[in-house]
Amino acid sequence: MDISEDALLVAIRKVLSGAGPEVRVGVGDDAAVVAPGTGDLVLTTDALVEGSHFTLATSTARDLGYKAIVVAVSDVAAMAASPRYALCALTLSGSVDAAWVMELFGGMREACDEYALWLVGGNLARGSEVTVAITAVGEAAPGRARTRDGARPGDVLVVTGALGAAAAGLRLATVPPRAPNADERAASARLARPVARVGEAGVLARHGATAMIDISDGLTLDLSRLCAASGVGARLELEAVPVAPAATQAEALGGGEDYELLVTLPGDAAVTGAADELREAFGVSLTRIGVIIEEGLVAVSSDDDESPLEPTGWDHFRDA
Amino acid sequence: MDISEDALLVAIRKVLSGAGPEVRVGVGDDAAVVAPGTGDLVLTTDALVEGSHFTLATSTARDLGYKAIVVAVSDVAAMAASPRYALCALTLSGSVDAAWVMELFGGMREACDEYALWLVGGNLARGSEVTVAITAVGEAAPGRARTRDGARPGDVLVVTGALGAAAAGLRLATVPPRAPNADERAASARLARPVARVGEAGVLARHGATAMIDISDGLTLDLSRLCAASGVGARLELEAVPVAPAATQAEALGGGEDYELLVTLPGDAAVTGAADELREAFGVSLTRIGVIIEEGLVAVSSDDDESPLEPTGWDHFRDA
Repeated sequence: MDISEDALLVAIRKVLSGAGPEVRVGVGDDAAVVAPGTGDLVLTTDALVEGSHFTLATSTARDLGYKAIVVAVSDVAAMAASPRYALCALTLSGSVDAAWVMELFGGMREACDEYALWLVGGNLARGSEVTVAITAVGEAAPGRARTRDGARPGDVLVVTGALGAAAAGLRLATVPPRAPNADERAASARLARPVARVGEAGVLARHGATAMIDISDGLTLDLSRLCAASGVGARLELEAVPVAPAATQAEALGGGEDYELLVTLPGDAAVTGAADELREAFGVSLTRIGVIIEEGLVAVSSDDDESPLEPTGWDHFRDA
Repeated sequence: MDISEDALLVAIRKVLSGAGPEVRVGVGDDAAVVAPGTGDLVLTTDALVEGSHFTLATSTARDLGYKAIVVAVSDVAAMAASPRYALCALTLSGSVDAAWVMELFGGMREACDEYALWLVGGNLARGSEVTVAITAVGEAAPGRARTRDGARPGDVLVVTGALGAAAAGLRLATVPPRAPNADERAASARLARPVARVGEAGVLARHGATAMIDISDGLTLDLSRLCAASGVGARLELEAVPVAPAATQAEALGGGEDYELLVTLPGDAAVTGAADELREAFGVSLTRIGVIIEEGLVAVSSDDDESPLEPTGWDHFRDA
């Protein structure tokens, strides 16, 4: 590093200056101190690791900082909670300099501004690869956080937006097209700067969502997790799954990092009501892709053929 | 890894089973949900990185898990707050297997039991080196958290326990003695399993502590940080600094990872009162090592010679 740790901390603090009245002690002390809200506390942590989630060659520092915050915020959203605070445990390698770190924090600041949370603390360490571990703290009305385990047979399975864009973006980064079209550029942008469905989750909770999860590791894998947690099964209508313009159906079913919400709602009236509100308030679609059943994961094809659904998606420990 | 991510998560959850009534949703959902306390929230994050803070050859998984929690708890203690919850963002390399990970979480669980906090969430990722990033959430009575910035000229500078043990332990790990004596074994144990001064910090706060920091990067470096934050200077009496039995004076002054508390108190009466209570309640010594002055860092030797104090200690970005 071309700067001492303490000098870097001073520079970082400038990028982060400004915090609401509820932040009593921000970055710079042993810990941050914030005034408590009146709701339940929602706590989550997530990490982006060089080589596994990004490379320095293909990600800008600013996009990486932005994405690290959004990924953690998405987990708060998936509980139907509002993000409030973030902390960053950063491991830096010899491949990055102080300017890169400033850009990284600039990207975090951008995302924090957009999602209305404060970066109140962090830690710097040195390693052989860059890791950005973000903890997000959110708030939910007491007892109103939505979990994965409330889905019941008969509930309707819905998904926000379209799936597969991030996976398509990853494919396009590996084999870049000579002249990417608008859909392909959008897919690449979605990979670099994902969207966390914070407001959307609130709408879905108000319409009675029984279970909620963000699709970070792939639709079928995250569906299998929701079903396992709820002790239920699901019939997934393959042709109903909304596929992002540049993506393939396989990418929509198994691609991770879309951060769309997979939600169960208690009936078609709730789906219609939530879909109308999401379209009007956020311009975001809500698509019915199946139904919760007693047990088993079943894939239904366009000609009503049924076959067992094998979850595919991102397992961090699958041998590469 | 010899096991899938989901199977590993199931195993981890078993190690962590059991949580207080204030934990509404623990490990396993997108985020944890906990009931808020009545106090201010204290938030901190810290990471142990392979190669930088430990090696797999010299640290057991159990000690590493234990230490990772204690290091974060120490930051909560240094705010005079009580630890409540922890989250763990874990990066695993191909060098460790599921049994190692279980031992790591076993060590975290041990430390969480000892310091009365709950590990409520986490994240698993894969990388080329192991990183254990812990976020600790604590609670302090509203407005009563102690920061680094309250030291005033005339305040007395005190330190808990003795310093340099962890640095001595690190030296002994590098060049192991053929037959380590009791002091050397204690130093090695202190490096592997540090102590966070949670209860002690509460006593010091009640006796009017004006500023508080845990000595993680070395006495002189952390003293310089406390002084910079408070806008004051300090006279440090070198001979007064309590040196751990196996350590050298240089290790006591510049060695990191002791996690003792460096505190300013508003006068000698407060020092005597706090020292008595710490000895009785915890068997921990409190030593007067200097005084806060208007500006400058001054080292005073045994024959009252004064010289500028150059902070030495752990800068993560100093070229190795």
